[in-house]
Amino acid sequence: MDYENRFRQHLESLHQEGRYRVFADLKRRCGAFPVADHFTESGTRDVAVWCSNDYLGMSQHPTVRAAMHEAIDAVGAGSGGTRNISGTTHYHVELEQELADLHNKEAALLFTSAYIANDATLSTLTRLIPGLQIFSDEKNHARSRASGMAAGPSHIFRHNDLEHLECFLQSVPLDTPKLIAFESVYSMDGHIAPIGEVCDLADKYNALTYLDEVHAVGLYGPRGGGIAELEGVMDRVDIINGTLAKGFGVMGGYIAASRACCDAIRSYAPGFIFTTSLAPAVAAGALASIRHLKRSDVERTRHRERVQTLKTMLADVGLPVMDNPSHIVPVMIGDPVHCKAVTDTLLTQYGIYVQPINYPTVPRGTERMRLTPSPVHSDAQMAYLVGALSELWAACPVANGQYVRLAAE
Amino acid sequence: MDYENRFRQHLESLHQEGRYRVFADLKRRCGAFPVADHFTESGTRDVAVWCSNDYLGMSQHPTVRAAMHEAIDAVGAGSGGTRNISGTTHYHVELEQELADLHNKEAALLFTSAYIANDATLSTLTRLIPGLQIFSDEKNHARSRASGMAAGPSHIFRHNDLEHLECFLQSVPLDTPKLIAFESVYSMDGHIAPIGEVCDLADKYNALTYLDEVHAVGLYGPRGGGIAELEGVMDRVDIINGTLAKGFGVMGGYIAASRACCDAIRSYAPGFIFTTSLAPAVAAGALASIRHLKRSDVERTRHRERVQTLKTMLADVGLPVMDNPSHIVPVMIGDPVHCKAVTDTLLTQYGIYVQPINYPTVPRGTERMRLTPSPVHSDAQMAYLVGALSELWAACPVANGQYVRLAAE
Ligand SMILES: Cc1ncc(COP(=O)(O)O)c(C=O)c1O
Ligand SMILES: Cc1ncc(COP(=O)(O)O)c(C=O)c1O
Repeated sequence: MDYENRFRQHLESLHQEGRYRVFADLKRRCGAFPVADHFTESGTRDVAVWCSNDYLGMSQHPTVRAAMHEAIDAVGAGSGGTRNISGTTHYHVELEQELADLHNKEAALLFTSAYIANDATLSTLTRLIPGLQIFSDEKNHARSRASGMAAGPSHIFRHNDLEHLECFLQSVPLDTPKLIAFESVYSMDGHIAPIGEVCDLADKYNALTYLDEVHAVGLYGPRGGGIAELEGVMDRVDIINGTLAKGFGVMGGYIAASRACCDAIRSYAPGFIFTTSLAPAVAAGALASIRHLKRSDVERTRHRERVQTLKTMLADVGLPVMDNPSHIVPVMIGDPVHCKAVTDTLLTQYGIYVQPINYPTVPRGTERMRLTPSPVHSDAQMAYLVGALSELWAACPVANGQYVRLAAE
Repeated sequence: MDYENRFRQHLESLHQEGRYRVFADLKRRCGAFPVADHFTESGTRDVAVWCSNDYLGMSQHPTVRAAMHEAIDAVGAGSGGTRNISGTTHYHVELEQELADLHNKEAALLFTSAYIANDATLSTLTRLIPGLQIFSDEKNHARSRASGMAAGPSHIFRHNDLEHLECFLQSVPLDTPKLIAFESVYSMDGHIAPIGEVCDLADKYNALTYLDEVHAVGLYGPRGGGIAELEGVMDRVDIINGTLAKGFGVMGGYIAASRACCDAIRSYAPGFIFTTSLAPAVAAGALASIRHLKRSDVERTRHRERVQTLKTMLADVGLPVMDNPSHIVPVMIGDPVHCKAVTDTLLTQYGIYVQPINYPTVPRGTERMRLTPSPVHSDAQMAYLVGALSELWAACPVANGQYVRLAAE
């Protein structure tokens, strides 16, 4: 058994498929976002970042940064422990209260990321509720899908398809415990789930509802509570999952739910128990960001306007922007090699940074660019982007559903 | 199915066993550590923290804090993306280089915690190397044990028992892929693994070695590379896992290994791919901490002295300190209710904060206090602690292996 060789074979197969990932080495410029320094072998150059999930630019907000500075000087860098063993700081306690209030739930529970919040919560629920069957949207984030499947019997229903979901719910006895796991905004297509209707089905079949609002919190609803808040159905969802890393601009994840549910996860989930808690400055920054976005609507209003403007500009020049009601602006390419060639050209020749999105993040054959305009992307930056894309599309048109490839490939 | 009721039943059983966990709501005082504010219903009081894993007090180090401040002002609060999609900053790149150098490996890979580093790496290795059998020390951290077991065929050998490990290794064909997962310092007992001997067996049976140095990095070795560095066997270990949250005082986790191994995990591990990267300020703080501890030995020297002093003081008054060669100072109690009564009394009557350690962190019947003296715990603080413990032990002696319980219980 030659282990090194085995690793190299796995890497080689990624190269062959054209989906070996190269990370862009960036340093964003606080105050000048979306502009960042891009470190390359031949030196550092300016780029405009068009694929960040810092959707509202909150990561450079003065209030957020001030809160982080203050916490570092007050209590230091790290928390020094797991939540149970000396790692609960007053920032964590206040942040959990703030999150519970944001979602109008009895309680909330912090994790080091929304990824681990999903994983820990779903896998622990299946341990606490023996026989729990999970009904999962086929477009759910890799983690919820995987945790659900690893956890026991599960049913993958067609994306946002209520009839298909009901078929599955009907196929299981009424008294079997059930959980429906879905997302409010699907991050790669920008679709929005029919939350109220899913909750109707949950009521009818006595299922728990688990809603991932990771791409919506901070962005939607009068106080930034997400799509469920916007649609007035927050109280109908049992467990809401969110991140502090995207709309709120910092890092960390959480669930908000009933007191007993949060307390049970707190007490039984290894992914919560056996790991150092979030750094106090991270908790403090997130707290400031949430409080700001609860009261301020300017960021959300401007964000909506920017998104609409970009979508219109792209459509006007005939670029294949995928229609959806959310803030995500996907532009379909459909081939991993071509997708990478386009984004490489954007980066090196235009100073525009858009990471190619390929398998396993999206299904093969649906490789795309995923643009995320924010309140701080200017008209001029948009015009420049759309101009660059038009040039590239003119240089390599689609013929018979096949892209004519760029020379660079 | 009444879900709420189910959650409440699970909580009730914890209360009945006496192991329902109550978190201490703290605010450490930067510069005055181990002193912290303890928030209670009746107000805020001073406590001395005796159970932090900020082993060297690096979380309040001026260099670490300065680096965090600088990063916040330079690039903002959060990274804004996963490592692949706009979340790789220059801080992450530099930190991975620094970690590779620390462990003298070709490469390193960052995760949001050592918990997820363990989980993601072990589960991905079993996917990349079909048939991989895992040999795991019985005292391994919950996560490595669970990931190993979930991942496929595994063998749990008796703690630090080379013969038992060899028995298992022999029982499997030589060409079956194997991985030995163990820790350098076992955090609850303070035992140290015979790393060189484990590597001898790995050579003999062609197994990969996976060493969790979470409780050793920063603390041991001339540059803080851990026990493997101290013993000159770093190059014999295939994959080293560490945290940025304990000795280094910030948060985050990593592996250090061959280039191909790190690249394969980077490319295939969902726990690496599908989550926002560490906040840049966290990466910057950790980088400063590692660089400092590579050059400075004062913290390690003073730490060793403090540990030895406390162990001697406890033994001198006849307290049941568990012997071990590391910096962990466990004091055995052996019963969850009694353990909590002792630590509650310490907190409320003496202003000493030590979290009771109970199941599932340690086996039932071995409930204990786990003291972690740091370079900033003074002689006076030690004398006060030992005095308080002596008073409590005098008030409730052990008779026939049973503790005579405190009135408070
Ligand atoms: C042995 C061991 N490995 C890994 C971890 C996880 O480290 P982190 O806090 O960085 O998640 C811990 C405890 O937190 C541990 O005790
Ligand atoms: C739908 C969804 N859920 C959860 C996550 C994980 O969030 P976090 O970055 O906080 O781990 C992501 C992406 O990062 C996501 O797209």
